[in-house]
Formats: sequence, C-alpha cells, structure tokens
Amino acid sequence: MTDNENNNRWVKNVKLARPSFKDNVADTDRLLRVLKTELGTERIGIDLEMIRALPKILREAGYQVRCTYFQRFSDVVLTDVKDISESSIPVGLAVDLGTTRYVLRLVNLLNGEILGEVAGDNPQISLGVDILTRIHYADQTGGTSDLQRLIIEGINESIKAVCSSANCDSSRIYNITLAGNTAMTHFFLGLPTHWMIRDPYIPTLNTPDLYRASELGLQVPVQARIMCFPNVGSYFGGDLFAGILSSGMQRKKEVSLLVDVGTNAEVVLGCQDWFIVCAGAAGPALEEGVSEIGKQARPGIIDQVTIDSETLEVHVHTLGDLLPEGICGSGVIDLAAELFKNGLLDIRGKFVLERYPERFHEIEGVLSFVVVPASESGTGEDLVIGQPEIDSLIRSKAAMFTILETLITSVGLTFDDLSAFYVAGTFGNFINPKSAIQIGMLPDLPLEYYCPLGNSSLAGATLILQQPEAINELGRVHSRVTYLELNVNQEFMNRFSAAKFLPHTEPSRFPSVTMS
Amino acid sequence: MTDNENNNRWVKNVKLARPSFKDNVADTDRLLRVLKTELGTERIGIDLEMIRALPKILREAGYQVRCTYFQRFSDVVLTDVKDISESSIPVGLAVDLGTTRYVLRLVNLLNGEILGEVAGDNPQISLGVDILTRIHYADQTGGTSDLQRLIIEGINESIKAVCSSANCDSSRIYNITLAGNTAMTHFFLGLPTHWMIRDPYIPTLNTPDLYRASELGLQVPVQARIMCFPNVGSYFGGDLFAGILSSGMQRKKEVSLLVDVGTNAEVVLGCQDWFIVCAGAAGPALEEGVSEIGKQARPGIIDQVTIDSETLEVHVHTLGDLLPEGICGSGVIDLAAELFKNGLLDIRGKFVLERYPERFHEIEGVLSFVVVPASESGTGEDLVIGQPEIDSLIRSKAAMFTILETLITSVGLTFDDLSAFYVAGTFGNFINPKSAIQIGMLPDLPLEYYCPLGNSSLAGATLILQQPEAINELGRVHSRVTYLELNVNQEFMNRFSAAKFLPHTEPSRFPSVTMS
Repeated sequence: MTDNENNNRWVKNVKLARPSFKDNVADTDRLLRVLKTELGTERIGIDLEMIRALPKILREAGYQVRCTYFQRFSDVVLTDVKDISESSIPVGLAVDLGTTRYVLRLVNLLNGEILGEVAGDNPQISLGVDILTRIHYADQTGGTSDLQRLIIEGINESIKAVCSSANCDSSRIYNITLAGNTAMTHFFLGLPTHWMIRDPYIPTLNTPDLYRASELGLQVPVQARIMCFPNVGSYFGGDLFAGILSSGMQRKKEVSLLVDVGTNAEVVLGCQDWFIVCAGAAGPALEEGVSEIGKQARPGIIDQVTIDSETLEVHVHTLGDLLPEGICGSGVIDLAAELFKNGLLDIRGKFVLERYPERFHEIEGVLSFVVVPASESGTGEDLVIGQPEIDSLIRSKAAMFTILETLITSVGLTFDDLSAFYVAGTFGNFINPKSAIQIGMLPDLPLEYYCPLGNSSLAGATLILQQPEAINELGRVHSRVTYLELNVNQEFMNRFSAAKFLPHTEPSRFPSVTMS
Repeated sequence: MTDNENNNRWVKNVKLARPSFKDNVADTDRLLRVLKTELGTERIGIDLEMIRALPKILREAGYQVRCTYFQRFSDVVLTDVKDISESSIPVGLAVDLGTTRYVLRLVNLLNGEILGEVAGDNPQISLGVDILTRIHYADQTGGTSDLQRLIIEGINESIKAVCSSANCDSSRIYNITLAGNTAMTHFFLGLPTHWMIRDPYIPTLNTPDLYRASELGLQVPVQARIMCFPNVGSYFGGDLFAGILSSGMQRKKEVSLLVDVGTNAEVVLGCQDWFIVCAGAAGPALEEGVSEIGKQARPGIIDQVTIDSETLEVHVHTLGDLLPEGICGSGVIDLAAELFKNGLLDIRGKFVLERYPERFHEIEGVLSFVVVPASESGTGEDLVIGQPEIDSLIRSKAAMFTILETLITSVGLTFDDLSAFYVAGTFGNFINPKSAIQIGMLPDLPLEYYCPLGNSSLAGATLILQQPEAINELGRVHSRVTYLELNVNQEFMNRFSAAKFLPHTEPSRFPSVTMS
C-alpha cells in the first residue's frame, strides 16, 4: 500500500485506493485510514484549512501523496500534504531559546540534514537583562505580551534570514521545536511567570501541547505545529530535557551525570530507567562578574592558563590569539588550579604571597595576583585577580561539588558508579576538566569520562526533527524525572564547608590532584 | 479529592492540592492531573488562552474549580474553568441544521435542562433552494465561503435571540453540537462539495473533529468547541446519526428500523451490535410538488382525510382548522388510502370513475378527483388530485417499500423480525401509519410498532449535551455502520414493480389492509 524510504522521518509517502462505489469513504477519512495504519495510531488531527484543500490535492496527485506529520504524546497532527512528486522539501525549524541569545536551525525533514543556522540576541534584553528583571516586567500591564511580541518578532526576522541563507521558503516549515528554560518558554508562549519566583515557585505550565505556531505569531504555514520542550519546575526547563536527549544518557543502562552551568547549575543523574534532577545557584563566579577582568568568552579573552612549575611564569591563551583583555570562566578555573598546583594558593584558597612576591599587588588592603602585566595586556593595564574573586570562585566550586554530591548521595550512589559525565553549554566546551578536578569543583573521575556537549539544547531540538522516536524518548524521560528540592539543611552546609577547601577537606577523594 | 453531584454531565467540580515544596507541579499540570484521573483519560487539551488565565483563577478560587469539558473520540478538551462558587451556569448549544430551516437550543450543562429554543430559515436559500443548486453555486469562486458566511451569520443572529430569550449570555456557551446532512455539514465547515454529486459521490470529510467554534466565525468564547455529527457518505449525514441516538435503537438487543423521509428516504436498520443504512430517492411525491394542491405543512393545509364508506363523502382536517388551501404529504397518503379502501382507486392505482362520477373532473384528458369543492375551499377553487399525482405517489411509495425490503433482505431478515419502526422528521409526526400501510408504503406491522420521533436531529444534538456517554455511543454507532449502496439492478426493479400495486402484488403481505 505504501512505499516509504523514510520510515524514520516525519514524512510518509502514501498511496490511497481510488474511490469507487464499493469504497466511497470521504477524502479525509480515506487518507487518515491509511496513515493511522502506517503510524499505528488511533487518531490523527488535521486542520480544516488542510481538509479544504484535500479533494483537489488528492485528485491532482492521483491519490499518491507525501504527508508530513508531527506528534506529542498521543497527539498526532498532519502538518502538510503534497503530491508525491512535489519537488520542494518539507522543512523543520529547531529553536534554542536562551536568555541572552537564541539559535535557529533549518532541518530537511526528508533526511535530517541541517540546511542552515542563524543566531540572534534575545530582544527581550531591552526589557530586562536577566530573567528576574523580565519576570518583574511581565507583572506590569501588558508586560507578558510585550515580552512575547519581542521574541516572536526576533525569531520571525531570523526565520527570514535562515531561510534566505538556505535558499528555502518559510512556507515549507511544518514542524518546529523549541528548547528554552522555564521562564523563556513561558515568555515565548505568553504565559504568566508571576508565581515562578514566589514560594513555592510554581510555573504556569510544565507540559506544553503541540500548538499552531502561526497562532503564536510565527510567520510559518497556518497548520505548522510547534513542540516546546517540557519543564519539570521553575528552575529545570526544556533546555535541560533537550540536553538529556542530545547526550543519549536516556538510552544507557549505566548511570551518567549531566551538568549545565549558567547562572544556575542544573544537574541530571540517571539512566534509561530513572532520572533525578536538581538545580542550584552555583554559577555566578564562573561567568562574567567574577572579577574585574572576568568576561564572557570572546576574542581577546583568556580561556586557558598554565603556570610553569619551575619559573612560575604565567602562560595564557586567548580566543583568537589576540592580546589579553580579560578572562572567562574556564580561564579562571585554569588559573586557580595552576595557582594551587604551584603553591600560590593554599588549601583554604588564600594567596601565598611569599611564593612569588613580585607578582602580587596590594591595593586598599586587597591582595591581587597579576595574571598579565600591563606591558603584555591588550588594555594597557595589569590584568589582575583579587583574593575576593578567588573566594567567590571557591564558594561557587564548593556549591557545585556539594550539589553533585547531594544528588548522587540521594540515590545511594557514589561518583564511582558513573559511566559518563556530560558537561553542557559554553562552560562544557571551554572548561578543562583537569583544572576543575584540581580545585575540587568536579569529582576526580578519569578525564575520558568528561564529555562536552556544546549547545545541547539546540542539539536536542534538532534531534526531535530528525528522529520521530526521540519524541517518545522525551515523553519517557519527562515521565520518569524526579525533581530533588535542594534543602539547604545542616547536612548540605556540612558538605559545603568541607568542599570549600582545595580540593576538599578529604584530599583522598581527589587522588589525581597534585599539590605542592 | 473531588465532590461531584454532576457525574453524568460535561461539568466536573474538582479540588486541587495546594502547591508546596513537596508538590510544586505547575498550575496547568496540577489541574490536568486531577481531571485525567476523574475522566479516566490520558490526555486533556487546553487552549493557551485558558492556560494564561489559570494561575489567577486557581488562586482566587482557593484551588476549587468547576471545569467544563467536551470530548470526541479520545480528544478531550477543557472548555471552561471557573471558581467553584461561580453562579453563572455553563451552557451548551445544540444546532439542527436543515436545508431550509435550522433550530437552536440552549442547554444547561449542569442539569441538562433546555433553556430556550429558536428556529430560523437557512439563509443559504438565497443562493439556492435545494442542495444541488447550492453545490453548483459552491463551485464558483468564493462560493463555498459565501455559503458558509451566510449560515454562520444566521446562526450568530439566532444565538443572540435564543440567549436573550433564555436570559443568558453567549459568553457562557462552551459546548456546541451540530447535526445536519452531509452537504449542510460541509457548507457549515466551509468544505468543498464538488465531488459529492459526481460519481462515485465522495464527500470531503465524514468524521469531523472537535473544532473551535470561534474559528468558524461563531460568536462564542474562543475556547468553545463544536462537535459536528459524522457522515457515512454523501447521502447519509449527521442528522441521521443524531436521529439514531435520539431513537435509542443503539441500546437495544432487538432489531429496529428508522426512516427519515425528505427529498430522499434515509433508512437505518440495526441494534446495539450492528447498523446497516441506505438512502434513496423516494420522497418527492410526499412533499410539496406532488400535485397542484400539494404543499408543505402549514395552517390551512389538509393533513388528514377520511372518506365515509357509506356516502363516500370526503372529510378533511386542516392544520389550524382553517378552510383548506392545499394538502401535504401525510394528507395525500391518507387520501390515497381512503380512495383505495373505498374502491375509488383500483389495485393498479387508477381512478374508478364509475364509483362516484360526480366527484371526478376530466380536464384536457387528465382525470382528477375533487378533494374539496370550490364552495368549501379556502382558495375559492376546487382542490383536486389528478391521476398523474396518484401515479407519482404510487411510484414513491413503491420506491420506499422497495428500499425497506431491499435493506432488510440484505441482512437475511424480514419485517417480522423488527421490534420497532421509528419515523423521523415532520413526515413521522404527521403520517398516519395505518394509511401508509393501506397503500403498501410501510410494512404491515402492528400500529404500536410505529414511533414518530419528531425532530430527531435536534433531539440527538441535545442528547450529546445532556449525556457525555452519548458521545461514546455515537462513536460506536458510527464505527459499526455499513452503508448499503442501492444498486438499481434487476432484483430491485422486480421488487419495485411488485410494490407498484395497492398495497402490493402479494396482498397476503398486508393482511390488515381492507380492500373493497
């Protein structure tokens, strides 16, 4: 009856029996009858707009058509029907919606090929740099719709750009996926966020349906559907579910860990049968703001640091090999690890001035280490890191380790039970695991266990467009997730205190760490 | 957890657990979690517009809400959420959409009470009196949307009227049902009808989903859903399925028959386990147009006729007891039955002039019987019925009987196997079964087997709003229906010829019939 080369795609070629007196079922029912068998489903939704066009399409196509569909849970929807000989390809759009940036990707739904990609600044920044400010803005009259309008406009512009770059028409976008954190997903859907930031932190919606993207204002065909990744709470959103999918940890018998570090650290522990997740404040020291010289990664920013153990000379690597102007999170971790390894930081994280006096400044009672002297910097001034910044980093790394330890202990496991440690996001791409272990931020696992995932949110959103079975995996993961509320109790504080040393009060837990 | 007095309605009162750190699921998921258990379903749809309003509603209602929902197959949709103490009642709207008239009914969804009813002329009449003309009109550019616009405008006016009469606001209409024949349902949904009247007579859609009524242009809340009764083919539509539901034949072990006579005769044979249906041209002679005096039922129209067997005097009854101006279908059947019983028609259906010469005219070679002389008529002229009109009636009654016989024979049954004979529509209300049997139009069953159903289309549409289980019954009926294509073959023609006698060539099949 059917002839499908693309069995694992969102596209099915079907051949219908021609109508006759013996088989005079209606056009729509005739098509759905075959598709229901093909897809093994009881019910397939089809918009009235498509039904209206169907009699003509079926007859002109000689009852052989190419159907594009999309699915979420048991909700299967037809998103396009064309003559089987139609030459233009059906296209999917993956959206990674971040707080500061978003990325769009076009995917060929016939073969999963990536056709183009564009990124843009989230225009909601004009109403608030961070999530909290935007949530307060949303509480004003019309605030929620302002925020929604801005991001929709931005994405619409980028749809034009990515379509133009891929030489594709936006009228061929039928299936859309969107991965964002809980707040971004709420803003995108125009949902209230007021209660997300108030005890006990309740989002409006965890499990979005398939919606008509055109209804949200996206300039795509009226029948195109958008699948937004689900949340599990205000602090664990769809971007993390996309990350899980892209890691593949949901297919493994063995237990893995996934960490995504931004403003918060979100952590996932699990395997094919179960998942436990949590989120906690851990990131500030790892991003912009950690020090005067702390910056987000961009050309001229130090991302790697080594210190010669003989001469104590500092060697830095900058992005783009430019003169150094600042240092990003991964650079700060490298720096702290090297300072500690070479005896310039003690186990409490305090500078050891006497080890290399000429490299230290003391300004207004604050002791600072000169990373790059003015003569070698791109700013014409010394690039320094002060004791307060190091203290802040120590708190951050201690928080991170404590979160990991609390999570893994909660299920009666230890780090030795892990088979892989996925690190998502920019942090995952740049961080040197060896340095992170050196300062006791990440557990002392063999280095090959650490896998950077890159933009796992975008990768997960892309995966759904490439592999229909991924949507079922997503459903399984979401239904198996337990959210661990990080109670900051005495036990947590004890662990946190123990983790505030370099690498830890129990160095035996970090056997690979070199200490001078 | 819940407290439902209205378990058999489309309304559920639910009490949610208040959010806490231990139970911090999102607002929407919190509500759906309880409703899914209540309704025993895996998935409940909820519009973004409702999700946006939910956080406020839940908190103001103290997490105790009244939910209105609607369902079609596995598709369950939330159509309203209000504070449990809300005083305004949720309302349903039943629409019987006929070719010439439509009727709207408001139903209290809490208790099933009928709150009001209005009727209106189908404004599509201005584009074509009958279905065929409208289908040709629809083929023109913009024709389909013209037809749709007209009926939507008409219904919107009537919604205002019925709401005003029931002192109810249209913003409280959440669930809507619509029963119409296949063409009317297509026009209402704006679907192409072109292929319905062309071999092999294929409609565009047999099985409508739940649609947003507001999307079709109805002035009701944006989340209100409309359930259109399904069709089984171009000539057997949703009105018949509504009729089946209202008869209750789908709940009986015993076999019943249902007939709806309009331009076509539509016939249903079945019981709780199976249904076989067919449609055939049988009606013209029973409606307006059968004779010069043939009219649709209205005041002044003869609906009953008796002839005194002694004096052969004709006694007529008119609607509204006015002076007679015409005769309707049931009157013509009565008249033919009485003429035959009193020897004024022979078994071939020919006038017996010699039996009462002074009551006959012969004008231009056409023999006519004077039903009402000019002196007693409301028109000042003789009301007559001519031999051609009688011949036409005979053909119609023969067609009707042949359809019934063909249908019942097709499943190996006889009329003796029937437990009930439902007669739908105006025809069913007015017809005298005794007369219909007398002329051999209906089978010779005990008179108490004949049950007039009145407007069974409206009754079925109302029933769905009163009893959620009726929607499952509808699903079962629709999935069990077999459409019998009436092949006009030699066997059909033989039966038809035999049925063209009064009452039949085999009078033994009509033992109760009196012949002079």
